[in-house]
Amino acid sequence: MQPVMRTDGVNPPWTMHREPLLHPEDSIYQWYCQADEEITTIYANFHGADPNRELTEINVRKCCFYPDKTGRNYITVQGFEMAQAACPWTPPTADQPGLLGVNWSKGWIIENNIIHDAKCSGISIGKEMSTGHNDCTLYHRKPGYHYQMEAVFAARQIGWSKETIGSHIIRNNEIYDCGQNGIVGHMGCVFSTIERNHIYNIAVKHEFFGYEIAGIKLHAAIDVQILRNHIHHCALGTWLDWQAQGTRVSKNLYYGNDRDLMIEVTHGPCIVDNNIFASDYNFDNIAQGTAYLHNLCCGTMRKEAVLDRSTPYHYPHSTEIAGVSFVYSGDDRIYQNIFLGGAVTYTPQSKYGTSDYNGHPASMEEYVDTITSLGNGDHEQFQSVSQPVYIDRNVYLNGAGSYEKEAVFYMSPSSPNVNISEEDGRVYLEITVEQGLLDLNTKLYATDDLGAPRITEAIFDSPEGNMISFDTDYLDQPRNAQPTAGPIETLQAGANKIRVW
Amino acid sequence: MQPVMRTDGVNPPWTMHREPLLHPEDSIYQWYCQADEEITTIYANFHGADPNRELTEINVRKCCFYPDKTGRNYITVQGFEMAQAACPWTPPTADQPGLLGVNWSKGWIIENNIIHDAKCSGISIGKEMSTGHNDCTLYHRKPGYHYQMEAVFAARQIGWSKETIGSHIIRNNEIYDCGQNGIVGHMGCVFSTIERNHIYNIAVKHEFFGYEIAGIKLHAAIDVQILRNHIHHCALGTWLDWQAQGTRVSKNLYYGNDRDLMIEVTHGPCIVDNNIFASDYNFDNIAQGTAYLHNLCCGTMRKEAVLDRSTPYHYPHSTEIAGVSFVYSGDDRIYQNIFLGGAVTYTPQSKYGTSDYNGHPASMEEYVDTITSLGNGDHEQFQSVSQPVYIDRNVYLNGAGSYEKEAVFYMSPSSPNVNISEEDGRVYLEITVEQGLLDLNTKLYATDDLGAPRITEAIFDSPEGNMISFDTDYLDQPRNAQPTAGPIETLQAGANKIRVW
Amino acid sequence: MQPVMRTDGVNPPWTMHREPLLHPEDSIYQWYCQADEEITTIYANFHGADPNRELTEINVRKCCFYPDKTGRNYITVQGFEMAQAACPWTPPTADQPGLLGVNWSKGWIIENNIIHDAKCSGISIGKEMSTGHNDCTLYHRKPGYHYQMEAVFAARQIGWSKETIGSHIIRNNEIYDCGQNGIVGHMGCVFSTIERNHIYNIAVKHEFFGYEIAGIKLHAAIDVQILRNHIHHCALGTWLDWQAQGTRVSKNLYYGNDRDLMIEVTHGPCIVDNNIFASDYNFDNIAQGTAYLHNLCCGTMRKEAVLDRSTPYHYPHSTEIAGVSFVYSGDDRIYQNIFLGGAVTYTPQSKYGTSDYNGHPASMEEYVDTITSLGNGDHEQFQSVSQPVYIDRNVYLNGAGSYEKEAVFYMSPSSPNVNISEEDGRVYLEITVEQGLLDLNTKLYATDDLGAPRITEAIFDSPEGNMISFDTDYLDQPRNAQPTAGPIETLQAGANKIRVW
Amino acid sequence: MQPVMRTDGVNPPWTMHREPLLHPEDSIYQWYCQADEEITTIYANFHGADPNRELTEINVRKCCFYPDKTGRNYITVQGFEMAQAACPWTPPTADQPGLLGVNWSKGWIIENNIIHDAKCSGISIGKEMSTGHNDCTLYHRKPGYHYQMEAVFAARQIGWSKETIGSHIIRNNEIYDCGQNGIVGHMGCVFSTIERNHIYNIAVKHEFFGYEIAGIKLHAAIDVQILRNHIHHCALGTWLDWQAQGTRVSKNLYYGNDRDLMIEVTHGPCIVDNNIFASDYNFDNIAQGTAYLHNLCCGTMRKEAVLDRSTPYHYPHSTEIAGVSFVYSGDDRIYQNIFLGGAVTYTPQSKYGTSDYNGHPASMEEYVDTITSLGNGDHEQFQSVSQPVYIDRNVYLNGAGSYEKEAVFYMSPSSPNVNISEEDGRVYLEITVEQGLLDLNTKLYATDDLGAPRITEAIFDSPEGNMISFDTDYLDQPRNAQPTAGPIETLQAGANKIRVW
Repeated sequence: MQPVMRTDGVNPPWTMHREPLLHPEDSIYQWYCQADEEITTIYANFHGADPNRELTEINVRKCCFYPDKTGRNYITVQGFEMAQAACPWTPPTADQPGLLGVNWSKGWIIENNIIHDAKCSGISIGKEMSTGHNDCTLYHRKPGYHYQMEAVFAARQIGWSKETIGSHIIRNNEIYDCGQNGIVGHMGCVFSTIERNHIYNIAVKHEFFGYEIAGIKLHAAIDVQILRNHIHHCALGTWLDWQAQGTRVSKNLYYGNDRDLMIEVTHGPCIVDNNIFASDYNFDNIAQGTAYLHNLCCGTMRKEAVLDRSTPYHYPHSTEIAGVSFVYSGDDRIYQNIFLGGAVTYTPQSKYGTSDYNGHPASMEEYVDTITSLGNGDHEQFQSVSQPVYIDRNVYLNGAGSYEKEAVFYMSPSSPNVNISEEDGRVYLEITVEQGLLDLNTKLYATDDLGAPRITEAIFDSPEGNMISFDTDYLDQPRNAQPTAGPIETLQAGANKIRVW
Repeated sequence: MQPVMRTDGVNPPWTMHREPLLHPEDSIYQWYCQADEEITTIYANFHGADPNRELTEINVRKCCFYPDKTGRNYITVQGFEMAQAACPWTPPTADQPGLLGVNWSKGWIIENNIIHDAKCSGISIGKEMSTGHNDCTLYHRKPGYHYQMEAVFAARQIGWSKETIGSHIIRNNEIYDCGQNGIVGHMGCVFSTIERNHIYNIAVKHEFFGYEIAGIKLHAAIDVQILRNHIHHCALGTWLDWQAQGTRVSKNLYYGNDRDLMIEVTHGPCIVDNNIFASDYNFDNIAQGTAYLHNLCCGTMRKEAVLDRSTPYHYPHSTEIAGVSFVYSGDDRIYQNIFLGGAVTYTPQSKYGTSDYNGHPASMEEYVDTITSLGNGDHEQFQSVSQPVYIDRNVYLNGAGSYEKEAVFYMSPSSPNVNISEEDGRVYLEITVEQGLLDLNTKLYATDDLGAPRITEAIFDSPEGNMISFDTDYLDQPRNAQPTAGPIETLQAGANKIRVW
Repeated sequence: MQPVMRTDGVNPPWTMHREPLLHPEDSIYQWYCQADEEITTIYANFHGADPNRELTEINVRKCCFYPDKTGRNYITVQGFEMAQAACPWTPPTADQPGLLGVNWSKGWIIENNIIHDAKCSGISIGKEMSTGHNDCTLYHRKPGYHYQMEAVFAARQIGWSKETIGSHIIRNNEIYDCGQNGIVGHMGCVFSTIERNHIYNIAVKHEFFGYEIAGIKLHAAIDVQILRNHIHHCALGTWLDWQAQGTRVSKNLYYGNDRDLMIEVTHGPCIVDNNIFASDYNFDNIAQGTAYLHNLCCGTMRKEAVLDRSTPYHYPHSTEIAGVSFVYSGDDRIYQNIFLGGAVTYTPQSKYGTSDYNGHPASMEEYVDTITSLGNGDHEQFQSVSQPVYIDRNVYLNGAGSYEKEAVFYMSPSSPNVNISEEDGRVYLEITVEQGLLDLNTKLYATDDLGAPRITEAIFDSPEGNMISFDTDYLDQPRNAQPTAGPIETLQAGANKIRVW
Repeated sequence: MQPVMRTDGVNPPWTMHREPLLHPEDSIYQWYCQADEEITTIYANFHGADPNRELTEINVRKCCFYPDKTGRNYITVQGFEMAQAACPWTPPTADQPGLLGVNWSKGWIIENNIIHDAKCSGISIGKEMSTGHNDCTLYHRKPGYHYQMEAVFAARQIGWSKETIGSHIIRNNEIYDCGQNGIVGHMGCVFSTIERNHIYNIAVKHEFFGYEIAGIKLHAAIDVQILRNHIHHCALGTWLDWQAQGTRVSKNLYYGNDRDLMIEVTHGPCIVDNNIFASDYNFDNIAQGTAYLHNLCCGTMRKEAVLDRSTPYHYPHSTEIAGVSFVYSGDDRIYQNIFLGGAVTYTPQSKYGTSDYNGHPASMEEYVDTITSLGNGDHEQFQSVSQPVYIDRNVYLNGAGSYEKEAVFYMSPSSPNVNISEEDGRVYLEITVEQGLLDLNTKLYATDDLGAPRITEAIFDSPEGNMISFDTDYLDQPRNAQPTAGPIETLQAGANKIRVW
């Protein structure tokens, strides 16, 4: 009845800061409702307009386009504007309807649409109801974590497989002003491609709090390809939670987000390459087995292990479960990225560069030797030894630190003065480059150079099982035999201004 | 070359005592071998016999009867004596050949045989090789625990199901003098019945040390029925490890074992009823979700949680995996047993009776209320709250303690003077009974009284899905409407001597 | 607008007769509808009542109680009267909603209800939509038969298994006046029990024609138990189509039906025992591998092979597919039934007794010898040799003929004057018995006597895998060691009048 | 004892001719064996050599390199010569050991080996024993066809899937002088690549008769790629039997074979492109749903339906079964091939060119219209209507006939004088080309042009699910926008001599 302007919102506790609202002045536009047996009275702020003279719409629709039944396959949704749906909260342990969505189907194409003002999630490629629906909240018998684990196995029972679910294409859509997610999906998202979407202003009103908020929030994103998207001004750009196996985040543009990318309780292989991460808080790395190549990282990484929650992993390119594991942290591959220092930090673990990997062995041999030296033992031994990491040929600028065992790298105290600017809907990256960066002794990396994560023992290949060569850059330009570190191959010494969207 | 008599052997560390050898004088009968390029020289102790005059057999056979290939189904082995095989160590993470075994098949009947002097395991209904073979020992990449978890999923890939594997019957066999196990089996044992076997002198020479030693050692004993066996003088009587779901241990006779029964990292429903446990160390209860009814427990129970290793559970009567979980301890049902005090104890946690369950709530409602009172949270909250237990109508004698919230029970400080004696191959139980024990207000328990374990949510039914009524006793005599606590229905006030084998 | 009284309706062509309407005078009560852009005019016959004074209900509801989504498990529907739903046609190749139904769920109990006036099917435990929905009618790309075959495999992909679907209990319901089926279900019916229902007046208005009409019409009725039902005045009593494996039809009362029981394109093991079949046209036997024991068969059997349509069979007590096969006819077991001659016949193949099996070998050995004598060859040879049959100890009265190789039987030309009569809701069987029938040399049959069908190689056991003994009669009275042929153990020489409902 | 020279051998009956032996003079070199209780006497023909002076080897080894157990994955066999193994007959319904083989494993690489003188099959990537082993021969309960069908489902039970079995690479091997097959495999072969092997003189001694003889004989060759092999002087070049779905036969050279290629009881999509078929008897086409593009076909095609044996088909790129079907014949795509007349014919159905497709409709619409015009009906209707075929832009020379509805084609009565010649291990194709052939109005075909077979409804894509463009020729030269018909893009008007191996 008497709204007060809010200027910031709650963030997950580990981020250790509140998040400012993008448009605090809008926070006083609220509505309020009273109902007795016969009459429902709605009080609303109409922004100075007279609701009796203007067109006023009160809608209670849950979705704009969402099949009532599961298994409606091969539908194309193309060229629509869809907006204003009162769709509910979509955690991974409940039915996940969105303003627009596929409801546990296969082979949709969603392209060239404008999607906005979903109360919670704009596009859903998520879970259906029978595999669990808010059971922890309703019954408190087991934690949400536990119900999510059971949901994975229950999904197998109702046929979750490459043959029946997923393989959607979501491309060229504009998605904005949604309360929880631009795109959301647990399990239903497998084998999908999310490409060239423009996603912004997601959850920046901070109407809700919960752990499931991001521009793109996927659980079990097996073999999902997130390519060439433009994601800015989101509470969190992209969150890959559980089973991000075979997942690739490539050639995306992130900036202006409270955080850019979170990867959580997953064991690889996952590839993050040729992206621009221009926000202050780049990574929550609560995972293992990720390969980071050719990214521009302007902010910080926070890295943590998880030793009280195991999560599944799968046979390569399949939903069939191969095992479950804790996250021991590490086992990452980090090659030919550009790291910047100087961004504001919020948590003690937030670090510029790769120095937070100090203390990890630099090879599997070193790891096995340490394990063996402990004598006979079981799982408790493996918890006490840090996993190997593979870090080389990176660039560290303006105070970013390198891994202690990194053999080849370029480090300079000067700042590259990175700036992202928008002009008439076009986005530009400005960066000042020293000749030393261009002279760094690099190589063309490919699948064979990356080995396999310790736990999953699956190689870093494409969803089709083909070898990957990192031979094109953010702009799809071919890489040279001795490529340039970071996402842009054609950097020049001195100032550069490059159109990146 | 110069053997010294050994008088005791190594026990797992948590038992906190060494185990005396049954026949220490035999421990000097050893052999020793030297080999050069042409000649192998064997030195052996021949017990005073002249090996050049007597018949000397040197054998290197791995098995007596074991199919070379998997999937050889529906074979009956009946009426043989089989002995002396140099079969290898059979952990759950390796190929598990026994002196006699089924090698990943279905529907064998093994009955009326005499099996003895297996170097490791007498009868194997265990795992085959392709799902993992000593990978931790060979590679040290992941712990044995982790490889065992992967083996369960790998077994599903090669068709581990009720349709193809298990459902064996092993009955009326005499099995003795084996170095590791009388009967062993990981996964291959599912849906089997092990009945009326006489198993003794297993691992009592203490030639090996390892965590896989018992008269009967089963992993993933889904729906296995262990009935009416006679198991004595074993390092450990029976060890149910991982996934003892739908398993029933009923009407067995245990005595003279260093430990009688261990149940480990499994979540129920598992039923232990109408057994005689007459050794000093009755239970290692490292599990949850077990129902103990009508047992005579002359020794101690040691109970522990496991919060750093999750293990699988299954859909009822199926090998299909439904989830994984830690062991939180508790969630047990304990009704109408007789507990004795007075046995020697080795560990601080070893307790007579059920007092070690103090601190656990007595109902699911109480449990949920505690959880709810903690506010919002995930798995970490559930680790801090003890699981409910269901304990009633037990008998506590000679110092055994009762659960603090037990409503109905009989307690007496006097000793029943239990004795197990053997005469001419017959075994007798002697017990002195007070009238108060017979007057205890009991009831006929059945499936409906037992609910479902918190984690697995599966009822305590029979392998066929039928309801179980605990309406017969150890001797297969019918129970009265108000039955007698413990395994024998027909106890009389005063001294009783009952033939139990 | 001008309805004419119809006196009979269409029957499937192979029955070679039209079926008289039970209440032809009702056939003029019809309605008719005209609609333009604004107004729908309904013309109806109101049986002499004035619709403007009486309560008139016009309803368009598809179902009375039917979940909108699949996978709503463990619901009990008890004690309702439900009537008048405009539910659509329910073939096995479409979504199958009924007036009341489970929509691809598990573990419902439907008991003590009164269900009537469903436009098509009263209770549905059938298929959902995503596995096929009228594809042949819509596209004509493949025949309905082919789409049904694909539906079986598609159902496996969405998790059709004992763990997730079926196991319903439908008992003590009264079901009548439905246009297509009293109870219907493709695949969703597996592992269910249908017991003590009273089903009548199904499809006797002959409003529709199609191949899917019966009191109970099930496809893929794996392990379904149809017990003690009372089914009369139906176009067809019970139709078991495709995969009636592990199915049992026992102690049911059939009379006044145009046909009693049809079993089609299925390979056994299927058991039909202790039933009263009192209509003129007892069996359409378009199957193989059925065991008929202790039935009273007052009418005819028509037996045919199907050599241009293969259908699936399964591993025992499982939805997992084990193969597909044609129906070669024969492979039936027929023991201790009473067959009567004298009923009206409609088709050349309709025969009293078992003489239509003449020409079939009497043992598997004889069959194999014939096959072997043909020399090398493949499937074409097996099409030319009749399958063995196992027929013995039956009673043939009033002109019913015996199988030419039957060793022991009783035959008499006199009629037993069987009559079914109803008095005050009770139903009586009258039958006159000769002493010779009672003196027939019979035996107690059980699973071990029945072998296994040639194709499926699965024994005639219970759904739980237990052995079956045919040791009780229609009235659940115990059988004697030398039991009486037919369903009633306590027949006396001379006239008998026995309450059978 | 007294061998007589044989000059020809038995062929399958439908070929209607006996096959001449390649080296009849060798047929007198035989051996013969007599055994009593103590002595085995071997009589042998030693080709004039004195076995007492020369090195004589008598071997009874079943295999040269073959794992004893199944599931031995990821083994490379490289650079060996392996010869002389007494390996047994390898039908699809038995264990299939070869001289060299994988025994139901995954991911072998077999390359650069010389394999010869296997008694039956040189390299095996086939079935193991537990899914069926000569059951028809042993028991005569069901035909071999039926046991093979059951083997497919049994294989699923033991885990036959992309995750566990197949994906072998067999390349650059020389394989010759084997009695039954150069390469054999049922089911174990899935997802494999067979490339650049030189296979010859297979079964040309005609020591055995049976239906399982060919240079390459595969059952269930799901997604198998047979590329750039050189196959000559075999009883049959390549035989794809059952489930050749996703299979591709591309850029192979066939000549001097009694028959070149047989495809049997399979439903597509299967691709045969850019091959040279230079023998007189090119195709036994007992299949449907195959696409033939850019082949040179110098001989005849025999085309037949199979309406009494259904066989399985699968979900795309998966071993999961999607249905079973008869072969109705037709549904083939035939584009831009060169067909020659003039070869000797043996059977009435053997035809040059595509005129044998006359009577088939030319589109799915035409097919559906015909079906619809027949009124309501089930499978029997679909048996009476020919399936559509898609035939265009082919070249017909020297009497080869075109399909009656073919819109664009080139036909000439003159002979191109095709000749295959060998010089110093190099093989040359000679062909005389008219300008008219080069002027034919062609196009670049790709996946989108080929639709999907009626039964399987799966597109003609690559094993990875990528689109295929037929944009390179036999020699891997790029195709022009208007490519040349037949396998060679660079044909010139007049005489051409092209090295093809």
